[in-house]
Amino acid sequence: MKAIVQKDPEDPASLVLEDVAMPELADGEVLVKVAAAGVNRADLLQARGHYPPPAGASEIIGLECAGTIADAGTTGREVGEEVGCLLAGGGYAEYVAVPEGQLLPIPKGYSLVDAASVIEVACTVWSNLVMEAGLGRDQTVLIHGGGGGIGTFAIQVAKSLGAKVAVTAGSAEKLETCMRYGADVLINYKEQDFAEELKGQCDVILDIIGAKYLKQNMKSLKKDGHMVIIGMQGGTKAEINLGALVANRLTLQGTTLRARDTEAKAAIVAETVKNVWPLLESGRIKHHRHATFPLADAAKAHAALDSGDVTGTLVLTV
Amino acid sequence: MKAIVQKDPEDPASLVLEDVAMPELADGEVLVKVAAAGVNRADLLQARGHYPPPAGASEIIGLECAGTIADAGTTGREVGEEVGCLLAGGGYAEYVAVPEGQLLPIPKGYSLVDAASVIEVACTVWSNLVMEAGLGRDQTVLIHGGGGGIGTFAIQVAKSLGAKVAVTAGSAEKLETCMRYGADVLINYKEQDFAEELKGQCDVILDIIGAKYLKQNMKSLKKDGHMVIIGMQGGTKAEINLGALVANRLTLQGTTLRARDTEAKAAIVAETVKNVWPLLESGRIKHHRHATFPLADAAKAHAALDSGDVTGTLVLTV
Repeated sequence: MKAIVQKDPEDPASLVLEDVAMPELADGEVLVKVAAAGVNRADLLQARGHYPPPAGASEIIGLECAGTIADAGTTGREVGEEVGCLLAGGGYAEYVAVPEGQLLPIPKGYSLVDAASVIEVACTVWSNLVMEAGLGRDQTVLIHGGGGGIGTFAIQVAKSLGAKVAVTAGSAEKLETCMRYGADVLINYKEQDFAEELKGQCDVILDIIGAKYLKQNMKSLKKDGHMVIIGMQGGTKAEINLGALVANRLTLQGTTLRARDTEAKAAIVAETVKNVWPLLESGRIKHHRHATFPLADAAKAHAALDSGDVTGTLVLTV
Repeated sequence: MKAIVQKDPEDPASLVLEDVAMPELADGEVLVKVAAAGVNRADLLQARGHYPPPAGASEIIGLECAGTIADAGTTGREVGEEVGCLLAGGGYAEYVAVPEGQLLPIPKGYSLVDAASVIEVACTVWSNLVMEAGLGRDQTVLIHGGGGGIGTFAIQVAKSLGAKVAVTAGSAEKLETCMRYGADVLINYKEQDFAEELKGQCDVILDIIGAKYLKQNMKSLKKDGHMVIIGMQGGTKAEINLGALVANRLTLQGTTLRARDTEAKAAIVAETVKNVWPLLESGRIKHHRHATFPLADAAKAHAALDSGDVTGTLVLTV
């Protein structure tokens, strides 16, 4: 089969479509013929050598895809069934092996191309906001990077739960996008100190910045507040005041989706399908696809995402 | 009524028994005639001016007591009923006002004096190990200060849950105490690096040290590990590596019991009575009372606890 291979680990742009071995199915896995694969920021990190696949996962880039089952293996699935797939790797390819618990139905009204880029973001947002941080009605959530793919999705999930949503973003245009998706409090981090705006008001924070925002995030949390860090665009090493953590009974949690075991992923997939899929199908949550690229142009897709001008998601079509 | 009053905030030993106004009952509170009050490390902090009572709480020291209901107020309780009390303050006195949700039955087989010092530790240990950190069967928990009042109680609760228990303490004698209470892994922190001994093995850590242990604690946790900080004997300011927090999906939580609202305290009290009281009554958990002092000798009790030679708990009798 053909797949994207990185020729030169020193050169993130050296992503080339070439022949590789077909994946082998383990027990409980199906073989999916990929129609489209989502492009995520984590893929850019992997292409730079900063985010190696977890042990046992495919070396091929790609954390989500949609397609049809080509071989049902030991599962009772039907060949030809259309599925979405949450992957530990391997999406940038013609075929990928997927544990059955990481298969998702295609939301009604969605094409395979539309579905390919909604899986990772939906599972990330639901697992962190709800399953980990317990966000609920009448709570306040702060979402950093509100204009990005995770941000716009998180805004809509939080609003659907009945939460009040504050966002940070770096331009009036991105904040306008956040407002369209339902954000209640818009903060331009280049002009305002979000901790001053939100001091002690947030029940939950979804953070992609890390070290640079740690102190301000802790100041923004309410008593018993819960902060989930899923990205560290602002560095990893920070000073922490444990006195404030204890006095305000704060929870600081780091999470990743990719390296979890199949059991944990299956639980996240099941909850996401149960709770988020109806919102996609009713149109309550809108998923904005920015652009598609042929699989062979993966390097161009990466360059587009890296430019920072993308407000929706990118998809590679096979 | 008589109560312990601190005459000189600069002098933690200036604790004098003198006349003060009777507490006034708010709606839903009962008046308890105190028979005995537990002495906690937090009381020493308060006597040094480092742990002021939360808004609305009594200025009088004392986080737990046992006694009889003298006035049932608006509750349906019976005057004369023997009760234990989880307090935000006010225990070092002849009478104290207590929200009904913070009343506990006296465990069968316990005297009021025995019961007075088991309430704070039982609620602290159960709420943190189980309600917050989710400790369960076949998990490994690390308990710092295993020989202290919280430590010995936590060891027994963890063992009753079917967990494997590692402890740190600063002497062979204290480790011997931990072993008697059921600890499986004994670490002398003066001679061993606990993080080297436990690298990546702990599901849960109950920490009373704070900054000094943060890095080693994070290294000791398993993937998805959960650490609860309830004390900061080793300082408050530390450097944290958020990269490790995210990569290992760690949760770092600070908690206190005292400042929680009455609803949260009532939930903790209810779970503690339901789960821990049967273990006290069956003798599965042993509660070791070290010594009693008359209420007037509160300063002596504080000096004894401060000396660090106490392995059980101290009680003031009224």
